[in-house]
Amino acid sequence: MTLPEKIPENSVGLIMPQVQHFTEPLQFDCGRVLDSYQIVYETYGQLNADHSNAILICHALSGDHHAAGYHSMDDKNPGWWDNCIGPGKPLDTNRFFIVSLNNLGGCKGSTGPNTINPETNKPYGPDFPIVTVNDWVRSQVRLGEALGISQWVAIVGGSLGGMQALQWAIDYPDRLRYCVVIAATPKLTAQNIAFNEVSRQAIMTDPEFYNGHYYDHNAIPRQGLMLARMLGHITYLSDESMRAKFGRELREGKIKFGFDVEFQVESYLRYQGRSFVDRFDANTYLLMTKALDYFDPAREYSHNLSAALAHVTANFLVISFTSDWRFSPERSEEIVRALTDNKKNVNYIEVKAHHGHDAFLMPIPHYLNVFSAYMRNIKISGENS
Amino acid sequence: MTLPEKIPENSVGLIMPQVQHFTEPLQFDCGRVLDSYQIVYETYGQLNADHSNAILICHALSGDHHAAGYHSMDDKNPGWWDNCIGPGKPLDTNRFFIVSLNNLGGCKGSTGPNTINPETNKPYGPDFPIVTVNDWVRSQVRLGEALGISQWVAIVGGSLGGMQALQWAIDYPDRLRYCVVIAATPKLTAQNIAFNEVSRQAIMTDPEFYNGHYYDHNAIPRQGLMLARMLGHITYLSDESMRAKFGRELREGKIKFGFDVEFQVESYLRYQGRSFVDRFDANTYLLMTKALDYFDPAREYSHNLSAALAHVTANFLVISFTSDWRFSPERSEEIVRALTDNKKNVNYIEVKAHHGHDAFLMPIPHYLNVFSAYMRNIKISGENS
Repeated sequence: MTLPEKIPENSVGLIMPQVQHFTEPLQFDCGRVLDSYQIVYETYGQLNADHSNAILICHALSGDHHAAGYHSMDDKNPGWWDNCIGPGKPLDTNRFFIVSLNNLGGCKGSTGPNTINPETNKPYGPDFPIVTVNDWVRSQVRLGEALGISQWVAIVGGSLGGMQALQWAIDYPDRLRYCVVIAATPKLTAQNIAFNEVSRQAIMTDPEFYNGHYYDHNAIPRQGLMLARMLGHITYLSDESMRAKFGRELREGKIKFGFDVEFQVESYLRYQGRSFVDRFDANTYLLMTKALDYFDPAREYSHNLSAALAHVTANFLVISFTSDWRFSPERSEEIVRALTDNKKNVNYIEVKAHHGHDAFLMPIPHYLNVFSAYMRNIKISGENS
Repeated sequence: MTLPEKIPENSVGLIMPQVQHFTEPLQFDCGRVLDSYQIVYETYGQLNADHSNAILICHALSGDHHAAGYHSMDDKNPGWWDNCIGPGKPLDTNRFFIVSLNNLGGCKGSTGPNTINPETNKPYGPDFPIVTVNDWVRSQVRLGEALGISQWVAIVGGSLGGMQALQWAIDYPDRLRYCVVIAATPKLTAQNIAFNEVSRQAIMTDPEFYNGHYYDHNAIPRQGLMLARMLGHITYLSDESMRAKFGRELREGKIKFGFDVEFQVESYLRYQGRSFVDRFDANTYLLMTKALDYFDPAREYSHNLSAALAHVTANFLVISFTSDWRFSPERSEEIVRALTDNKKNVNYIEVKAHHGHDAFLMPIPHYLNVFSAYMRNIKISGENS
């Protein structure tokens, strides 16, 4: 296809999301069952003849299936991981067939709280099953089967996405060759859970929340979701990157002695909070934070992460960022240590970056170079070496 | 006085708050004037004959005048700094006369938003002047004068209290001999301001806030103030101390797949949030966070902290805590560096502690020992050396 001029050459171009329907019931960890559901996804690149060049992308808390390219010529911004997906990029669409989905419980087309429940003809709302990382992995296995992919070259994710990649390697060792875990953690700390809890309380105590049935009241828990997002943003950036970005700069040059925006950082946070409300669902936000809190693959192995990883067979690339205080390098190193305890093949890179947790989304040269070099070394059948 | 058995021997015992009325108008930095006001305060120990043994305690964001001892025999807990104030303690009431006040804008008896405005016969509410650290210092000077104290042996404070001590040393060099600045900073970072802004938004977007006039509606912005306090608590503790205190412990031993409390840390935060609402005023909380944001004594000196501290004459003790990520040791070191640039007398201690910012309130032996030793070396006229 010929791309219009304004889409960059190394973009995957215009992309159309696809939908896969499932009618085999899916059992959730919480005990609930969905009899049928759908998953929306996008693909970039071409699946090769023997279906051996597919990579699965797992998204983070507020992510979705739209990881690369543009949905229309009017789009101001490409998908959330466009820095890493495209021709010549680390996840090179000249070689790989890349699949990116919106997880169950999401709000961008896959079955979730804002989907109509066929049994009630109303949105699921708070009656949607609480989802876990394990549940997502099970649903992703089915998506792979529907697409004819029995083994992925790699499963790749940042943050909560990295946790899904790790869970794949534990639960389905035969179904992936490489596992790329970026800016993740083997489990949340008490502080991480505490931030999530404040966000949840902000949403759930908003009078417009109506116990999660706000759709039925034509309402949105706007203030709660805005607060959750503002708070989230603080944890995605580093103290250093906030200083670099905003310092103590006053929006109007001088102190106004009032409660309107005075410092630039306040303006930024309010904007981020407000614009999030227009594109995200509060019930989905609650579900995503719970999946984060629950994730702890070592729990079933007497809290021994090395035991949890004893039977993985994938080769691992683990990447952390120096200024990430949400999931710090120490957390990534716990994963690396558990893998080396088991003499698994693991490459680990701690990237020097001041961007905080958000670094995994940024075009940081060292990060992209290391990631590219690692992916280039992966052999696919049928390719000239 | 003979104390009942259950009050510890090294306590200042039963304490009765006192009130000082002022009728000379007070000008605030924001341009507003209060024609009359009152300050509530407590004293511990005895003022000596020449009034040369007085120490002023400045409180932090949610503190008040009740720093030591008990208000009644039924009190479960003593004042907020009982670890440091009392016979034989760092601020030794056998030697010093200690004054602790509730700042203007507070909610515990000093004139503030919940005080009746004589001009309207309604609470000031949001019409109370925005207060700054400078304003507080000016009001504290008057309190000292009312008590017959023209020079303090020391002015002492932790966190926002430390900022007041620092401002005293800059604005009134002749009126203090020693300045003790604990767990403080010469100015907030963008991240600090960001956390304050989320707290303010939580309060101000609460439908029960009524633009600050909630008293008139018999309402309290309960959820907003609760969220602000929960968030505050995360920043007062360290990741490490939260791990030590709660880990990932589940309240009922197993995952319940719901949005009620599951992890111990959630239970703790909700409790802290709820109990705060019963003892604190939302408008005061807003004012205190603004005073924090605005504090920046170097601003008037072309952002040069050394220039701001060029004319201080007090001897300084600066104390920081290793795990304090709210006001980290680096921030204290900026103060120390600016003082040594000017060849001022300064002692600096970085105390190893896992408690985070809250460490300044804790009975950490190294901290109390250093603090005690420093205070013991201070000579007071009339004492045998």
